[in-house]
Amino acid sequence: MWFDNLSVLFDVGGTVSFAVSGALAAMNKRLDPFGVLVVAFVTAVGGGTLRDMLLGDTPVSWMRHEGITLLIVFTTTVAMFLKRYVERLRFTLLLFDSLGLGLFTTIGIAKGMAYGLHPGICIALGTMTGCFGGVIRDVLLNEVPVIFHKELYASVCIMGGLLYYLLKTVPWLNPLAGVLTIVFILSVRLIAVRYKLALPKWYM
Amino acid sequence: MWFDNLSVLFDVGGTVSFAVSGALAAMNKRLDPFGVLVVAFVTAVGGGTLRDMLLGDTPVSWMRHEGITLLIVFTTTVAMFLKRYVERLRFTLLLFDSLGLGLFTTIGIAKGMAYGLHPGICIALGTMTGCFGGVIRDVLLNEVPVIFHKELYASVCIMGGLLYYLLKTVPWLNPLAGVLTIVFILSVRLIAVRYKLALPKWYM
Amino acid sequence: MWFDNLSVLFDVGGTVSFAVSGALAAMNKRLDPFGVLVVAFVTAVGGGTLRDMLLGDTPVSWMRHEGITLLIVFTTTVAMFLKRYVERLRFTLLLFDSLGLGLFTTIGIAKGMAYGLHPGICIALGTMTGCFGGVIRDVLLNEVPVIFHKELYASVCIMGGLLYYLLKTVPWLNPLAGVLTIVFILSVRLIAVRYKLALPKWYM
Repeated sequence: MWFDNLSVLFDVGGTVSFAVSGALAAMNKRLDPFGVLVVAFVTAVGGGTLRDMLLGDTPVSWMRHEGITLLIVFTTTVAMFLKRYVERLRFTLLLFDSLGLGLFTTIGIAKGMAYGLHPGICIALGTMTGCFGGVIRDVLLNEVPVIFHKELYASVCIMGGLLYYLLKTVPWLNPLAGVLTIVFILSVRLIAVRYKLALPKWYM
Repeated sequence: MWFDNLSVLFDVGGTVSFAVSGALAAMNKRLDPFGVLVVAFVTAVGGGTLRDMLLGDTPVSWMRHEGITLLIVFTTTVAMFLKRYVERLRFTLLLFDSLGLGLFTTIGIAKGMAYGLHPGICIALGTMTGCFGGVIRDVLLNEVPVIFHKELYASVCIMGGLLYYLLKTVPWLNPLAGVLTIVFILSVRLIAVRYKLALPKWYM
Repeated sequence: MWFDNLSVLFDVGGTVSFAVSGALAAMNKRLDPFGVLVVAFVTAVGGGTLRDMLLGDTPVSWMRHEGITLLIVFTTTVAMFLKRYVERLRFTLLLFDSLGLGLFTTIGIAKGMAYGLHPGICIALGTMTGCFGGVIRDVLLNEVPVIFHKELYASVCIMGGLLYYLLKTVPWLNPLAGVLTIVFILSVRLIAVRYKLALPKWYM
């Protein structure tokens, strides 16, 4: 029960984060209010929708919980009215995008484990759940997808996934595995962007 | 039975409209005949395919009705031979795209209702069913997706969806709800493009 | 049993081919190692994933066979270390992409037939299975999708699909239908690119 509440909290957090990230990117591209809403919606539900379609858990998550749709409409409306007060837009977008990345990657891995899938496949599923919302947002807005950015992105999800399994093996860290993975993904992503960290590309 | 026939008519109409719209866009991009066929096919079945995958109604619609595939092959072939007689290409493309938008949005909402989903979720499903064919057409042809156009697009679907629910509550308008919603979406979209109507963007 | 082994061989071959093709394209775009892995993974499993989601055969194929994920990780790692020895990169990319196209198209048609679908729908399914990996690779890397290239692409899948059904009707060619279709698709695609073959576009 305690975990269930935490799981719902993660889902709400990830949805709000990606909705804000989608709304900000869409407002930046001067879409009209409904266009902003559609992009925010697709960004927020994209990862979980892909995850559920891959697993065959249909109707997909957002269709069974109308609260998600209401939450996205509410969040997007607030984002539209508060946008002028959001000064450092690029940092805010990065922050929400990275937080959503951490939350959704962790949810994806946990759901894969609940289906009894192989660890490597759970990490792949988590990475796709985390990355897909941002990818579809950027494809819709005709931007170069985030996955193509110079800084760590998918890498952070894969490393976070490995960490998650590592933490799950330590008994007293087990209940904190989710939270710590999210903190790890968020911090590494922010540090990577701040200091322009990148992995070596020996093949070039 | 009467409604069933109407529903089939909507499906055929939407398929033909989006197939023509996909074929015209692909010919404009100078794809070869099979390429035109593939783009026309994906544009025509894209929305319904996404809808069925989200609902878990598989194999998806076009796989269960081979008539749809034949209809698309026939429509696309006709479009390829008649293209030189289609003078005002831009308007024709707009007309078919808008008609398909109205038809598929309405089908999507009706199918969501048949699954007993929440009204807000049905409208989201209808909007995605209506918009996705055009989005995938534009992504394949490396165009800026229609959803990003200045004029009303997704907005019209959402407004149409609200109208549909409103009409459904009026007993004597109930059977006409579908047709009126399609006419509404088609007209508003054409008027919006003609007079360059757009919603206010207060956040800019 | 003999056919089953052949089927597994096709699947392994297509996965390796598309993983290499995705890895080469991603390295060309200077993605970091994990980015290369993600693009290789999505390119390799994209077609089969779409096929299984359309049919409702979930969890999709790669989730039920962890060997596929291991194979992709291994192939991509080798490709990253051997890249400097791969001199004629453009031809290698073309070769692996065309081989994967042939293998996956044939698998897609065979799976559609196993579901008892109409021949025309099996060919459409095979074409989508074959083309989707390359399309998603190019969309992720912000390239013009392969389907839009001047040379034959989707056309080869459709012609290959028709050939497959033709061969299936000849008793003594029946067991060789798959292999011959793959050879046909690979050869026609390579010849088309080499001699810049293209279908006539009478509508221009």
